[in-house]
Amino acid sequence: MTQPEVLETLPPDVDQDAGQFIEGVPESEVFSLAVDGMGGDGGPEVVVAGISRTADHYRDIKILLIGDKGQLLPLLRRYPKAEAICTIWHTESVVPMDMKPTAALRLRQSSMRLAMDAVASGRAKGMVSAGNSGAMLALAKTVVKTFPGISRPAMAAISPTLKGDVVMLDLGANVVCDWRNLVEFAVMGEAFAKAVLGLPAPTIGLLNVGSEELKGDEKLRLAAETLKQSPLSSQFYGFVEGHDITAGTTDVVVTDGFTGNVALKTGEGVLKMVAVLLRRVFKSSLSARVGYLLVQRGLERMKEWLDPRRYNGAVFVGLNGVVVKSHGGTDAEGFASAVDVAMDMVVHGFTESMRNRLSCMGSLLRQ
Amino acid sequence: MTQPEVLETLPPDVDQDAGQFIEGVPESEVFSLAVDGMGGDGGPEVVVAGISRTADHYRDIKILLIGDKGQLLPLLRRYPKAEAICTIWHTESVVPMDMKPTAALRLRQSSMRLAMDAVASGRAKGMVSAGNSGAMLALAKTVVKTFPGISRPAMAAISPTLKGDVVMLDLGANVVCDWRNLVEFAVMGEAFAKAVLGLPAPTIGLLNVGSEELKGDEKLRLAAETLKQSPLSSQFYGFVEGHDITAGTTDVVVTDGFTGNVALKTGEGVLKMVAVLLRRVFKSSLSARVGYLLVQRGLERMKEWLDPRRYNGAVFVGLNGVVVKSHGGTDAEGFASAVDVAMDMVVHGFTESMRNRLSCMGSLLRQ
Repeated sequence: MTQPEVLETLPPDVDQDAGQFIEGVPESEVFSLAVDGMGGDGGPEVVVAGISRTADHYRDIKILLIGDKGQLLPLLRRYPKAEAICTIWHTESVVPMDMKPTAALRLRQSSMRLAMDAVASGRAKGMVSAGNSGAMLALAKTVVKTFPGISRPAMAAISPTLKGDVVMLDLGANVVCDWRNLVEFAVMGEAFAKAVLGLPAPTIGLLNVGSEELKGDEKLRLAAETLKQSPLSSQFYGFVEGHDITAGTTDVVVTDGFTGNVALKTGEGVLKMVAVLLRRVFKSSLSARVGYLLVQRGLERMKEWLDPRRYNGAVFVGLNGVVVKSHGGTDAEGFASAVDVAMDMVVHGFTESMRNRLSCMGSLLRQ
Repeated sequence: MTQPEVLETLPPDVDQDAGQFIEGVPESEVFSLAVDGMGGDGGPEVVVAGISRTADHYRDIKILLIGDKGQLLPLLRRYPKAEAICTIWHTESVVPMDMKPTAALRLRQSSMRLAMDAVASGRAKGMVSAGNSGAMLALAKTVVKTFPGISRPAMAAISPTLKGDVVMLDLGANVVCDWRNLVEFAVMGEAFAKAVLGLPAPTIGLLNVGSEELKGDEKLRLAAETLKQSPLSSQFYGFVEGHDITAGTTDVVVTDGFTGNVALKTGEGVLKMVAVLLRRVFKSSLSARVGYLLVQRGLERMKEWLDPRRYNGAVFVGLNGVVVKSHGGTDAEGFASAVDVAMDMVVHGFTESMRNRLSCMGSLLRQ
């Protein structure tokens, strides 16, 4: 068995100080993904076990695994599927989970920073980390940088509905938004739904407190007006309400980062409450326990389908590369979902799809 | 059997044009509640059947039932418990469910308007309607008027959590809010939780995208700062997140009307999705059907507990009287919940409790 390659120093084509894009990395040397090997509450073990699961779904994947070789090498030995596709880029510096973004920006050799550098320099097509979210957004903006034509990156994720999955954004990157941000979120959400859900023409809804045209504030009315006149008009459904998210009324739900974050967490809270109540019901009597055994299989399928791990991987969209944030407290299966989302975006051309849309939208967004 | 009293003309102590408060209605002639007999999709039958259920919970209640005597009298004959406590105030005019608020304000004799007049004139301590929400808010502001010291009324409601019930506001009356509105919502929510949940010192959370003090925007930080320095400081928990609503972290959750409306409807949507999925699971096989029969009793108790009808009755708080909006599409049980909420507020001194708090908060809100 050959040991995985370990890069002790930075590859020569990375400008270490600026993380600038440097032309000319040959396609054969480009990694599918750079993965922060140290981030998350579960540490390197969850990361390596997650990569091992992704190796089952994707062939010919090459991963640049960044972190402490002293911890990563023994783990790779235990997960040979991961070992076969990983190259280690050694660094001992890590962004702690509670570090402020401004401090994280000063750590030039952290595993998270080097993963961003790899994307910015063209060494990797995307990156995944389960580390500190605030640090990750700040590093993504500074190192990978915002996509030309987009004012601010957003956070998107997939949720289950009664009619398949829904893409929701922004989930917290932008607490205050104007109408232009909302229109940009629609463009990014549509490209994301195409790449990750595989839909040819995803429909888009703008989250509001009522579906009538007069509801909501000025920024919502302006965003709706602009989308109606845009190349996305045939896919724009109009305003949707909170209950439309799980009804699956549209494939994409667009909102500001404050509302999106509250809606996502409220939904998770309700699911958790129902799970607790169901557990109580099934334990309430002997006959209920027997009943549970009879429906167990169906309930487990339902639980699997609603499993937050299946929807792990909040994506920072609107950057010069694919940047996926795994939940810090996830396990190997959850981390694998995040890596899968990143691979879907890389393979199904999320960035190109967004670029094409933006070039058609250009004049509308410069009003 | 005696027929209920029918008032064909306005009581002489109501100033019909202005709906002004006129001193001197003797306590013995004050109605507990004025009820709009015509509002809602279910029409008068749901209203009268609902009142009949409330008659079981409250003794010595006197209701002024406003609407078309031709429809109401035969219904009261079928519901003798309602008949025993109702006086009919006859009017044939009704606010249609799709009428714009500005048009509804011009209908001086509508059943909804006359119920507001009864509260404004001191003839009734509160009112309940299942009619047009927009019209109801506009009429409440114009006729019953905003409470001195409150800038804008808000919409509050009760939801189930893992630790008892939670009061949430604003649910859509104020789409855009400043820090003063949020502090006022906290004052009103605390008084509401005292009156309706019977808690001696309800705790208050401010909905945000994170619990750290630096999260969120300026208005949230200012509102938190003010509450910390206020007489409510010992009950103020700080920031809460979406999942804290159903976790029951605090007894009151304060937010702006846009976020509150989205959170409420998102939660309802998730519950509906889970109900559909559970039905599928229990029908998926013969053994699952048998299993259902064994857990049926527990599931029905759980369903009852989460039943939106039990939580019917969004309350407009911050007015010179108790104004409760029942969901337009509810049934008799749901309408009875709304009447119960109104009675709880009247009996347990919601308005007095709010007045006392406001007089202590006064200088903080005038900053």
